[in-house]
Amino acid sequence: MTAWKNATDLATARANAFQEALVELLKIPSVSSDSTRKAELEAAAKWVRDFAEDSGLQAEILPTDGLPVVYGERRVSDDGPTLLIYGHYDVQPVEPLSEWSRDPFDPVVRDGNLIARGSTDDKGQFLALLCGLQVAFESGLGPKVNIKVLIEGEEEVGSPSLVPFIRANKERFAADAVIISDSSQLGPGAPAITYGLRGILCMELILRGAKQDLHSGSYGGAVANPANVLTRIISACQKPFGKIAIPGFYDHVRELEAHEREAFRELPFSEEEFLNEVGAPALWGEEGFSSLERKWARPTFDVNGLTSGHQGEGSKTVLPREARAKFSMRLVPDQDPEEIRRITEEFLLSLVPKSVEAEIIPEHGASPVLVSTDTDVFRAAERAIETGFGKRPVLVREGGSIPVVNTFKEELGIDSVLIGLGLPDDGAHGPNEKFSLADFQRGVLTMAALVDEVSKHS
Amino acid sequence: MTAWKNATDLATARANAFQEALVELLKIPSVSSDSTRKAELEAAAKWVRDFAEDSGLQAEILPTDGLPVVYGERRVSDDGPTLLIYGHYDVQPVEPLSEWSRDPFDPVVRDGNLIARGSTDDKGQFLALLCGLQVAFESGLGPKVNIKVLIEGEEEVGSPSLVPFIRANKERFAADAVIISDSSQLGPGAPAITYGLRGILCMELILRGAKQDLHSGSYGGAVANPANVLTRIISACQKPFGKIAIPGFYDHVRELEAHEREAFRELPFSEEEFLNEVGAPALWGEEGFSSLERKWARPTFDVNGLTSGHQGEGSKTVLPREARAKFSMRLVPDQDPEEIRRITEEFLLSLVPKSVEAEIIPEHGASPVLVSTDTDVFRAAERAIETGFGKRPVLVREGGSIPVVNTFKEELGIDSVLIGLGLPDDGAHGPNEKFSLADFQRGVLTMAALVDEVSKHS
Repeated sequence: MTAWKNATDLATARANAFQEALVELLKIPSVSSDSTRKAELEAAAKWVRDFAEDSGLQAEILPTDGLPVVYGERRVSDDGPTLLIYGHYDVQPVEPLSEWSRDPFDPVVRDGNLIARGSTDDKGQFLALLCGLQVAFESGLGPKVNIKVLIEGEEEVGSPSLVPFIRANKERFAADAVIISDSSQLGPGAPAITYGLRGILCMELILRGAKQDLHSGSYGGAVANPANVLTRIISACQKPFGKIAIPGFYDHVRELEAHEREAFRELPFSEEEFLNEVGAPALWGEEGFSSLERKWARPTFDVNGLTSGHQGEGSKTVLPREARAKFSMRLVPDQDPEEIRRITEEFLLSLVPKSVEAEIIPEHGASPVLVSTDTDVFRAAERAIETGFGKRPVLVREGGSIPVVNTFKEELGIDSVLIGLGLPDDGAHGPNEKFSLADFQRGVLTMAALVDEVSKHS
Repeated sequence: MTAWKNATDLATARANAFQEALVELLKIPSVSSDSTRKAELEAAAKWVRDFAEDSGLQAEILPTDGLPVVYGERRVSDDGPTLLIYGHYDVQPVEPLSEWSRDPFDPVVRDGNLIARGSTDDKGQFLALLCGLQVAFESGLGPKVNIKVLIEGEEEVGSPSLVPFIRANKERFAADAVIISDSSQLGPGAPAITYGLRGILCMELILRGAKQDLHSGSYGGAVANPANVLTRIISACQKPFGKIAIPGFYDHVRELEAHEREAFRELPFSEEEFLNEVGAPALWGEEGFSSLERKWARPTFDVNGLTSGHQGEGSKTVLPREARAKFSMRLVPDQDPEEIRRITEEFLLSLVPKSVEAEIIPEHGASPVLVSTDTDVFRAAERAIETGFGKRPVLVREGGSIPVVNTFKEELGIDSVLIGLGLPDDGAHGPNEKFSLADFQRGVLTMAALVDEVSKHS
């Protein structure tokens, strides 16, 4: 118990320093989808490398075909267990800026939350794990546990470089389990381990008509309007209540097991509170499914962006030259992103009239995943969360995608343990993203406890 | 003939000065839909007032409930005929700026065309008329013809203030005919008088779901996506090939007369050249109608702008908080904009699910119009165009709207004569708007000749 007492004392003593470190990292606008932000992404990588070094890891920046990864290692035993910690230093875009109450890269604490782009996704979450390692190492926890840390910079654009990089460095990343904090608790006071993730497939459809915007009076009726056509094609992909009309889309959808539906029903989840959190006029979705089932285990087709013609104030009577729809589909086991991409492209193109030209931009995809809940590290993680949060975690699925979870399974044969430190209303990907400082500190303790638990049971 | 010889000599001598004047006016970014451009709109009004004064009119700026109008008058006879010249000094927005080859308010001459926002719509066209008046007055043409000039600043936003202003000043605007150059020739070397205009109705539909953008993984499937719903509602307004699905939409559509279809067929119009001008992959429209019939005499439903969610580079997996569609319907005799507005709103709202909130912004509307071709001034205009352009004009209809044509008819009982100086591919409302300097000069001569013709035949 002395080592653990030391660890908790140290975590408390360092709490302010850890917060200040997180604030520093959040100030770096490392938006990976923005090709003008390369310098900031590299600055974020350097910052993480330095922090990992200061925490007791041998750390370095490794080049990839795209943005660099930070790799850190602490090797203490040839026969001890090895944990691979994964996170990402890149963040989502911040548009529309007008919906933020302040600069997304000038973090502020409000009501116990740190508000900034990347606070919960994923800088705050992975940094809690690094801080927990620092605490564990300095307190003498887990003397035989080997640690590897891999923090990448392309998660928000589908990790295109990481997959070949891992494939080319299998020895380096060999481990018994991957630990990832890039998800959510079920709610405040309901810490969770996520055992299932939806897959994803992103695309953009661009339709082009006339060579330039035309006066809708002088030409309307005699020239096809790409924006009109776009609404018809995107509409044709949908059926009422969230069903998808793309032929073959449901062919490989695995239905939920009875025991999962039962377990979901017993979770502390209130449809009313969920509606309140969302702030929509009403909930919505596939008939015959609960909200949790809809967002965790049913596929979707969602428009992420529409752009055409006049975007400003007032009316402008043009036939737009071009119309664009960005959309993403969330996939569930056993849908294959590449097959869905193929049938979706086929369907879209079959709807394009000869009066417009279509271009489909293939964006990133990831397979859905279910991880094993029956491993030593998984059970150690359950106990560590109970220590860090004072409450046993619930087992949940999540609607989002963490593409590398698949990569780790497919390339390295390792299951991931997804420890959610965030909250569902943190606003990942939206404006005013936040992360609870109390959960940050609980995450630090959870990681320290996980090193301890893995050490004791190996 | 001496007066007419003087006029043509003067027009030639002044050609450069007239062009320079037009360039000055085009430099003023008088975008009426942009509420931040009030000062520029007022500057444009002052410029027009000064030019009218210099041309021999008694001119002043008259306040309205909105932007001011420029009014000029030259009263020479109690029993002579009176022409009312109408134009507008405001212009369309310029977005997207990236599609302009240069600053839209820094005019340049290229291939004999002046390129700038407003060059053809309507600064270049109405200024040709004012220059023609200057030439006529100084050459002694039309000694008994009274002239009134009315140049407004809200045409591109539906002339909301002009209608009550004319209604309140009926005496001031009394005239035998209105002369308007805010339309097009049928093509190069085919000058035209437009005897029919489509009406218009503009609206914007805004759908709102959650209180902020949401992560499409964490929420997708359980929360309605306003952008998805928007595509379905806008799609539901359309049938294949440009037919409109709003119930009751066609109830009052007047079919083309057989003699009109016959006359249209005889016009020098090539579907192939039209396609080439447009630059689309193929022509398109209602089955059983020619392109001219489709764009002149059939109603339309056109999306003018779509805005939702992520507009930038790459993918961003959000459920947008809001989705917007701006759209306009072109109307034909005897459709009533207010009735169409009512049935459209009813139809749209009937399609809105309870999971999103809808707002409909009513934008401007105007009735379709057919003017009499059987008047003295109409026949004088045919001869004046033959003098100015060296070619007898064809009689056409046009797909665009000039709302005041209705106002002049309804409030003052006066028919308008629409003398098109522009060309169909001038790009009014689009990027790189242009106006031929040769047509500008032909317009000057046409106006001078019109004063002369009206004088001789009255």
